Amino acid sequence: MLNFECDYMKGACPAVLQRLIETNMDETLGYGADPYCRSAIERIRAACGCPEARVYFLTGGTQVNATAMYAVLRHCQGVISPVTGHINHHESGAVEATGHKVIALPGHDGGKLKAEDVERYLKDYWADENYAHIVEPGMVYITHPTELGALYTMDELKALSSICRSYRIPLYLDGARLAYALASDKTDITLEDIASLCDIFYIGGTKCGALFGEALVIPRPELTGELFSIIKQRGAMLAKGRLLGLQFDTLFTDGLYARNGLNAIETADLLAKGIKDKGYSFLIPPQTNQLFVIMENDRIEELRREVSFSMWEHVDADRSAIRLVTDWATSKTDIEALLALL
Amino acid sequence: MLNFECDYMKGACPAVLQRLIETNMDETLGYGADPYCRSAIERIRAACGCPEARVYFLTGGTQVNATAMYAVLRHCQGVISPVTGHINHHESGAVEATGHKVIALPGHDGGKLKAEDVERYLKDYWADENYAHIVEPGMVYITHPTELGALYTMDELKALSSICRSYRIPLYLDGARLAYALASDKTDITLEDIASLCDIFYIGGTKCGALFGEALVIPRPELTGELFSIIKQRGAMLAKGRLLGLQFDTLFTDGLYARNGLNAIETADLLAKGIKDKGYSFLIPPQTNQLFVIMENDRIEELRREVSFSMWEHVDADRSAIRLVTDWATSKTDIEALLALL
Amino acid sequence: MLNFECDYMKGACPAVLQRLIETNMDETLGYGADPYCRSAIERIRAACGCPEARVYFLTGGTQVNATAMYAVLRHCQGVISPVTGHINHHESGAVEATGHKVIALPGHDGGKLKAEDVERYLKDYWADENYAHIVEPGMVYITHPTELGALYTMDELKALSSICRSYRIPLYLDGARLAYALASDKTDITLEDIASLCDIFYIGGTKCGALFGEALVIPRPELTGELFSIIKQRGAMLAKGRLLGLQFDTLFTDGLYARNGLNAIETADLLAKGIKDKGYSFLIPPQTNQLFVIMENDRIEELRREVSFSMWEHVDADRSAIRLVTDWATSKTDIEALLALL
Amino acid sequence: MLNFECDYMKGACPAVLQRLIETNMDETLGYGADPYCRSAIERIRAACGCPEARVYFLTGGTQVNATAMYAVLRHCQGVISPVTGHINHHESGAVEATGHKVIALPGHDGGKLKAEDVERYLKDYWADENYAHIVEPGMVYITHPTELGALYTMDELKALSSICRSYRIPLYLDGARLAYALASDKTDITLEDIASLCDIFYIGGTKCGALFGEALVIPRPELTGELFSIIKQRGAMLAKGRLLGLQFDTLFTDGLYARNGLNAIETADLLAKGIKDKGYSFLIPPQTNQLFVIMENDRIEELRREVSFSMWEHVDADRSAIRLVTDWATSKTDIEALLALL
Repeated sequence: MLNFECDYMKGACPAVLQRLIETNMDETLGYGADPYCRSAIERIRAACGCPEARVYFLTGGTQVNATAMYAVLRHCQGVISPVTGHINHHESGAVEATGHKVIALPGHDGGKLKAEDVERYLKDYWADENYAHIVEPGMVYITHPTELGALYTMDELKALSSICRSYRIPLYLDGARLAYALASDKTDITLEDIASLCDIFYIGGTKCGALFGEALVIPRPELTGELFSIIKQRGAMLAKGRLLGLQFDTLFTDGLYARNGLNAIETADLLAKGIKDKGYSFLIPPQTNQLFVIMENDRIEELRREVSFSMWEHVDADRSAIRLVTDWATSKTDIEALLALL
Repeated sequence: MLNFECDYMKGACPAVLQRLIETNMDETLGYGADPYCRSAIERIRAACGCPEARVYFLTGGTQVNATAMYAVLRHCQGVISPVTGHINHHESGAVEATGHKVIALPGHDGGKLKAEDVERYLKDYWADENYAHIVEPGMVYITHPTELGALYTMDELKALSSICRSYRIPLYLDGARLAYALASDKTDITLEDIASLCDIFYIGGTKCGALFGEALVIPRPELTGELFSIIKQRGAMLAKGRLLGLQFDTLFTDGLYARNGLNAIETADLLAKGIKDKGYSFLIPPQTNQLFVIMENDRIEELRREVSFSMWEHVDADRSAIRLVTDWATSKTDIEALLALL
Repeated sequence: MLNFECDYMKGACPAVLQRLIETNMDETLGYGADPYCRSAIERIRAACGCPEARVYFLTGGTQVNATAMYAVLRHCQGVISPVTGHINHHESGAVEATGHKVIALPGHDGGKLKAEDVERYLKDYWADENYAHIVEPGMVYITHPTELGALYTMDELKALSSICRSYRIPLYLDGARLAYALASDKTDITLEDIASLCDIFYIGGTKCGALFGEALVIPRPELTGELFSIIKQRGAMLAKGRLLGLQFDTLFTDGLYARNGLNAIETADLLAKGIKDKGYSFLIPPQTNQLFVIMENDRIEELRREVSFSMWEHVDADRSAIRLVTDWATSKTDIEALLALL
Repeated sequence: MLNFECDYMKGACPAVLQRLIETNMDETLGYGADPYCRSAIERIRAACGCPEARVYFLTGGTQVNATAMYAVLRHCQGVISPVTGHINHHESGAVEATGHKVIALPGHDGGKLKAEDVERYLKDYWADENYAHIVEPGMVYITHPTELGALYTMDELKALSSICRSYRIPLYLDGARLAYALASDKTDITLEDIASLCDIFYIGGTKCGALFGEALVIPRPELTGELFSIIKQRGAMLAKGRLLGLQFDTLFTDGLYARNGLNAIETADLLAKGIKDKGYSFLIPPQTNQLFVIMENDRIEELRREVSFSMWEHVDADRSAIRLVTDWATSKTDIEALLALL
């Protein structure tokens, strides 16, 4: 069975696994007070160009999103998200469960927020004489890449950042698949750019070569107080915090995180080219490691016998879009095998 | 440096690590829909003698406690806990953050709840004509072993269970260190007894040989609905759920969990005997893998240079209690080395 | 200054005020345990044709909405509302603050939910293989009349009720202006119909002749447990509960609530006819006591000097819609005076 | 039947009722944007000697307490309260439902917090190396008079204020019965003193002559942001806000609030003297308008036939304490009638 179902099916990339093995019997203090966490924080600060950034390690994306919004939003504030944003659609209401509304605006070109939509919403909100009766937009949430694999351009990100700053609200970037955004040549946004333009974001590990874990980064520490207690209170503080620190320390040593991203992008590009050559079209133009390919329903049923993938949506009576995902471990052989079946 | 600081300083026990390595490149569905989780659930059900139990794997104790109470308590209900209960004291208010009061009753003999105290509280509550203005006691929470390493006797657990049942409220057992309770000869309570007498409990992995993770068990599934969405909403659902399932599958194969417990208990017993022989006394009689030894403050300062441990509390002007903890990996050599220093 | 700004500017209708004066020095038990509350509950049960209904008196609409949803929705459930629904737009996020998502569907014909939209949403939700990751629709919320004064027809309400029942979720009706819906001849829905077709609703007092207060009604008591403690916990339990009971007792004696509604409707009809005769058009066809009249902006500015009303929205570059509201106390003289100015 | 049950059994004092009648048909804007609220705010500011105080009007004590703590406490903070504090015991867990722990310390002399207890708790908290795992004490809550009618002395209040300030946490005073504290000669604390020494408090109306309502006062506005939206979100913002403003405007005109307090105190003093003369003793020395009288159980049963009052607690096998409460309307004739029965 070929596997293109998603990018969190395997364990850890080899170097991460190796470090976990090597350090298994080390004895360190818990809750992040260990040398691996400290080292990982320094490496991430360096990679972001933010020597004073707050960095915390948590175990999953929904956990990071809900914890960060709980920590940062004030009462009566909500968070602007594209309709298809992960927090709006696929987190079982985790943000609302912390008491905050997700204010959904339309997405464009694969689920991206448009700066002008955000600006209009903010302007209208503050112009409404009854604004105090309405949830105050207190944050802007984007995913990069989006749930559909789309990427913001530098201009788009700058425009969003600029609006957020003029309204003094933080811009939050959900980087569950950040390695794949950074490796793509469809955008020139770097990690330093993100740290400069966003106010809070997370660097995804689970889908990008870690066994599990995400790194929450607050580039300018004045945005929040110390978050230790809040993370603990949310049940999001791993007792053996070093497990997370160690992984990010490894991923941010010698460019491993970038290489993990690059492998997925190169194999996805190869796959996209092959698919195009065979005459299929895409739901949205491929940009990262997720390809949304439109196929006849019969063809899809056949393919299922030998390949694992997700159904995405119906396109018309006869055709649907399927999702094919590459990752840090996908090989060219896998791609060739899949293309041979198409 | 000898390490008796706590039981979550090392990684995983060898067999668990081995399985993580072997299965690293397996590709499984996420969120617990994998064969390792299914197998682990069956093994835990068998070990508990509850073939229909609901079993979920989460990443840490505070997370399990807060998630379970959020799921089970109704609005306006609180949970009865001993004053020293972990939820009352050491979880940054995680239970209250889900909206529920922790109703603290005095602890006895190392932080145990007394059935008669619980009964009196419940009786008085329902006899108060203004009870609807007061938080309703909706659950009883105990830890076994307690935060001070104390164990309930079978009679004590039966008495608590009986009162909870007569008032139709669930009895919750926090088993962060359950392996060490099960292995101790100071109580004859088995896992099957716990599953029979308690209504919800968790089997600790993090402190008992897993890399990380806890198994929440609801022996009689009618207590709650399906908890998947609630766990997801709390950010407590690991995408690579198999990492947790695999560990518990291993721990509950061929008695590994019991062996892990036994090692800690045997080394703790050896240590306790040696300490007693040297004339020290204990804050409370040793029962599991945590020993609370009373020493002169000067002596403690000296010991610190070669041994890592926790300060517990001041006993009098000159003496304090320190905590020494053994675990699944403590060796007799470690014990001898420590005793040589005392 | 003529006042058509809104229907909660004045105090109480004369009969309600008279009873408050007469009973001022009575001494009754607090928290609803008084004869006035008991009598009011019986009168409301009789008017609804539901002899076992649970009835509670609270002080305002946002309070009732948030308390009722907090009480009824289970964790991970949200409430379907039209985009313009009061809970979605004008309650400062009160529902989300209780942890529940408002799932906004498009409104039609003045902010009404369409049964087919609701059905499609529910069907799609349960057909989604990842539904457990998505907020579960656990209630349907409508306002009658809507925020734009529109009314459901009997067929529309029956269709919504039927869908809710086939999916076993409650239908909630926000009746902040219910007196005006009941008095209008644009729909033939009675209070008994509402009690029969909806599962939870409130009868608005504040805007319909009471000094303040709303009556929450749960026609079939098995929907919820006793709500006293939840109402108390939310700070929504008035110590002098009799103040609310007394008002509803009065409003539901000798048809006062209906007469209050009728006055607003008759004067609104008179006003609508006059406005139409003068050649103005309406944003939506007048149905209850709120008229949304389209006017030249210059004309609006002139009118402001002698009449108090709300601006509603811009229609085009030169024209806007204003809102004119009648109530239980509006006189024909007021209408004539206003028409003379148009 | 003589009524000494509690101080919220009657309606409004005559002057308040009169103003409600006179202004009933006034047409004002809602949500506090009316001249009565503005005037009441200015009068309260003047009475407090705080010309910039934030002042809000809410409908009940539990509502004020929970709203204020929700607004002021940061995540992971709790509020220190005496065990018998109203928020700890009699509000159905309203504070915990906002996510915050009530940290209960022992009460003294009728439920008063001792400054040294608070200081020790704060000192120990910050000295604990694991403090980040423990709920941070973020506010101190007291009632004045206490639930047992006891009063803080100026020295006691100064000591509490001083400790709170040295730890930079707000001191909150629950003044549900504040009129009775201010009128008592057992303490010399004035309203200005409270505004100077406390950081947030409320002036009770419901029990002190208003029909209903409480005034939340934040003497130095920098403690919080504008609270309108939070109050609205909590369902605690009355649409006809003027009803509350008008009442407090009246209570703070020509010393009415003080006179209401004085009547209760004078009648309570008369009653206390008579009771003492008849040889009864008190559970705690009478200080305000609540007397806790110890009587034979048989005697209590007899008295019940002609007087309404609360049972308080059992004193020994044969005797119990009952509570007798006077208010703004109690007459000397009432007292004489009661004394004749004792």
